[in-house]
Amino acid sequence: MHHMLDYGFRGKIYPINPRQPEIMGIKAYPGLEDIPGTVDYVIHLIGVNNAPDVLTQASHKGAKAMHILAGRAGETGRPEGKELEREILKYARESGIRVLGPNCLGVFCPKSGLAFGFDFPKEPGKVGALIQSGGNATDLIHISSLRGIRFSKVVSYGNALDINEADLLRYFTDDPETEIILSYVEGLRINGREYLELVREAASRKPVVICKGGRTKVGSRMTVSHTASLAGSVNLWETAIRQAGAVPVKNLDELVNMAVAFTFLPPIKGKNVGIVGAGGGRSVLSADEWEENGFNVPPLPRDIREELKRRGSQLWDWIDNPADVSIMIPGDPVTMPDVLSEIVKNPAFDFIAADAEEDPPFGKEPFIQHLTEDMMGYIKISRECQKPLLIIFDERSPGIKDMDSYIHRTRAELRTLLVKEGLGFFPSVSEAAKTIKELINYYQRREEIRH
Amino acid sequence: MHHMLDYGFRGKIYPINPRQPEIMGIKAYPGLEDIPGTVDYVIHLIGVNNAPDVLTQASHKGAKAMHILAGRAGETGRPEGKELEREILKYARESGIRVLGPNCLGVFCPKSGLAFGFDFPKEPGKVGALIQSGGNATDLIHISSLRGIRFSKVVSYGNALDINEADLLRYFTDDPETEIILSYVEGLRINGREYLELVREAASRKPVVICKGGRTKVGSRMTVSHTASLAGSVNLWETAIRQAGAVPVKNLDELVNMAVAFTFLPPIKGKNVGIVGAGGGRSVLSADEWEENGFNVPPLPRDIREELKRRGSQLWDWIDNPADVSIMIPGDPVTMPDVLSEIVKNPAFDFIAADAEEDPPFGKEPFIQHLTEDMMGYIKISRECQKPLLIIFDERSPGIKDMDSYIHRTRAELRTLLVKEGLGFFPSVSEAAKTIKELINYYQRREEIRH
Repeated sequence: MHHMLDYGFRGKIYPINPRQPEIMGIKAYPGLEDIPGTVDYVIHLIGVNNAPDVLTQASHKGAKAMHILAGRAGETGRPEGKELEREILKYARESGIRVLGPNCLGVFCPKSGLAFGFDFPKEPGKVGALIQSGGNATDLIHISSLRGIRFSKVVSYGNALDINEADLLRYFTDDPETEIILSYVEGLRINGREYLELVREAASRKPVVICKGGRTKVGSRMTVSHTASLAGSVNLWETAIRQAGAVPVKNLDELVNMAVAFTFLPPIKGKNVGIVGAGGGRSVLSADEWEENGFNVPPLPRDIREELKRRGSQLWDWIDNPADVSIMIPGDPVTMPDVLSEIVKNPAFDFIAADAEEDPPFGKEPFIQHLTEDMMGYIKISRECQKPLLIIFDERSPGIKDMDSYIHRTRAELRTLLVKEGLGFFPSVSEAAKTIKELINYYQRREEIRH
Repeated sequence: MHHMLDYGFRGKIYPINPRQPEIMGIKAYPGLEDIPGTVDYVIHLIGVNNAPDVLTQASHKGAKAMHILAGRAGETGRPEGKELEREILKYARESGIRVLGPNCLGVFCPKSGLAFGFDFPKEPGKVGALIQSGGNATDLIHISSLRGIRFSKVVSYGNALDINEADLLRYFTDDPETEIILSYVEGLRINGREYLELVREAASRKPVVICKGGRTKVGSRMTVSHTASLAGSVNLWETAIRQAGAVPVKNLDELVNMAVAFTFLPPIKGKNVGIVGAGGGRSVLSADEWEENGFNVPPLPRDIREELKRRGSQLWDWIDNPADVSIMIPGDPVTMPDVLSEIVKNPAFDFIAADAEEDPPFGKEPFIQHLTEDMMGYIKISRECQKPLLIIFDERSPGIKDMDSYIHRTRAELRTLLVKEGLGFFPSVSEAAKTIKELINYYQRREEIRH
């Protein structure tokens, strides 16, 4: 309730508490039956044991759905937990109320102001997510919102006793507010074939990214005690997800990276990358990582060199792809933004990876100026041209004093600017390369499915 | 000079400038020959063309070494650049002065206050680094200092015209202030067999971690224009480095992670990991990633369960490895630190991976309290026991407002605490698992080499 008020829930809230006349400034009722009129949605925050009783009461108030937060039901593996779930399901079916949970955080819906955690972004967005684990749902929202991702709805659905992956996949497939679907799933309540059919249907209409928890023997052992799920084989799962047209990922970071790619990048269809923005050593390692991930880093085409020469550059024969910024000569008629524009225009490149990271060693003012100018250049290019441009912007581990240093504050300001400008950034070259590889793979499969 | 003054260089500095009587408050001299007495070390910050002249002058002042910062020598690939390098080398040999560079940032030596960049940590440490690229050297120092790494010396050696990887490897092998050697190398000035012999000798005395730039076709094409180096085959290189007893890595992040592992962790010899600290979904994914990297995540041993039962825990049959913190019951006689202590004592586990990351969804005070208590618990355990304990502490991408939020400030404060307490932390489970895999591999190879 704290989160909902904090977040700005726009509907009416009726707290229920037999011992308090008021909760957080809102009139409380001793029981569900004491609330005047009807109730749409019941959030059940107390122990799971009396959920059957509350379901009966809720049905008398016309409720359509109930979210049971508490766990210690089927996932304990104990017979009494399983029995309790059977009973809850029986009451749900009898009352016609759809149950979300038990053992989950419920629904985050920015548009209606429903939130289950703190510090969630207020603006609605186009990413929908069905995330079996509440902790992973919270982490996903926190991590991805820093990268500019905004959500239509996020549903943490826990033990999936009643509302399960099938209901939610169908919902997000049809939801006009959702353009990209993310999912974390530990196990299935429906059979695999039916599930893959639903994934295929969803993926035929919007990008779908699925992170499977419990891929391994031990991971799968854990899902039993976490959400009482059964797990399958890793490779089978990955292959099946790909064949259904969705993107399989292995952890939350990959889930976030794919969300960033689908949100901020146009389709990327080829593997020729133009690399700009870093100094020598960083460029060399960047080229290595792109190539090791199956990309081509073509040499700077002859026509670009000729153009640079024509403009009187002293560097025309030396500059290459990656374009090493550290060799630029002050006063040369050709600047790095000029080189970048040429690369952007040239058909030899399918997309651009721009680095925002090299720490220029010359002190405060040049550091701020260099980083800011680079970023403004990238923003300008991304506005003017259709060629996909992604930015590498390392994450680091600042200590408390670093939080007030110009280095980390400048970086933070530029990240805010990138988010505002709708540019996608990735925390390392390896993560960028892995993500774009999956993105290209996705568009290729989609082409194949269509033809 | 700015960096040296800023950093607190303890020796005497003689700026040379024909047009200024004073530079940054220090008396300047029109030429090298005008400096009274002898000079130990010359830092050549102007264009590379007059380096031969300056070498002659330096030899008259008794200088032992000269660092040439500027590039545009051999690495341009142009005949005049190569000719210039031949000339510099000739003058160096004639004068008996050792030359560092050209095309490099030179020496960072905290003990003597010599620094080539801004914001470097002031305290000396036990990590030595020979980093061919100046940008990579700067990034390495910045990134790893946030993780608690401190350096004996870092040498950026660029084109390696005179002082090369062989000199530096020999130096760091013998240097009593260096206990761990890191290297970024683009190409070799000596032949491969000789190099591997030097690596083998170094690795027989201290851990050696080597990042090779220019592993791929394109990366290698780039090293030619960056430091005029020749590259070899990826797999050959990796295998050879491993056989020599060193650890090959692919990028700066991996270099930093290995430095953290060698600096803060005792030898890890087995693959059985105990996982604590995260909630359900995060635990499941963590278990998956450790297992996919070849680790065992053994189920909670029977004797631990029996002990928990004896102490009256309601969770004795439910809690497992990973130990899911979200299932803990307030008031249960067994707390998560109790479970952690049992795991630490138990021989079923070779090391512990502790998670510091789940965002508890309950608001400010619980967030701060939960994270801080977890970390204090890990610090206490790490002080009391010999079992290796590493911490997973995600990096994120805060925007400018986030820099002042309690979430990111609490995280930053805890990172500072961890560094102070000498605990190693890793930015993700996958990076931790990859790093520890290499660490175990390293100790195994060392055993094999010895027997």
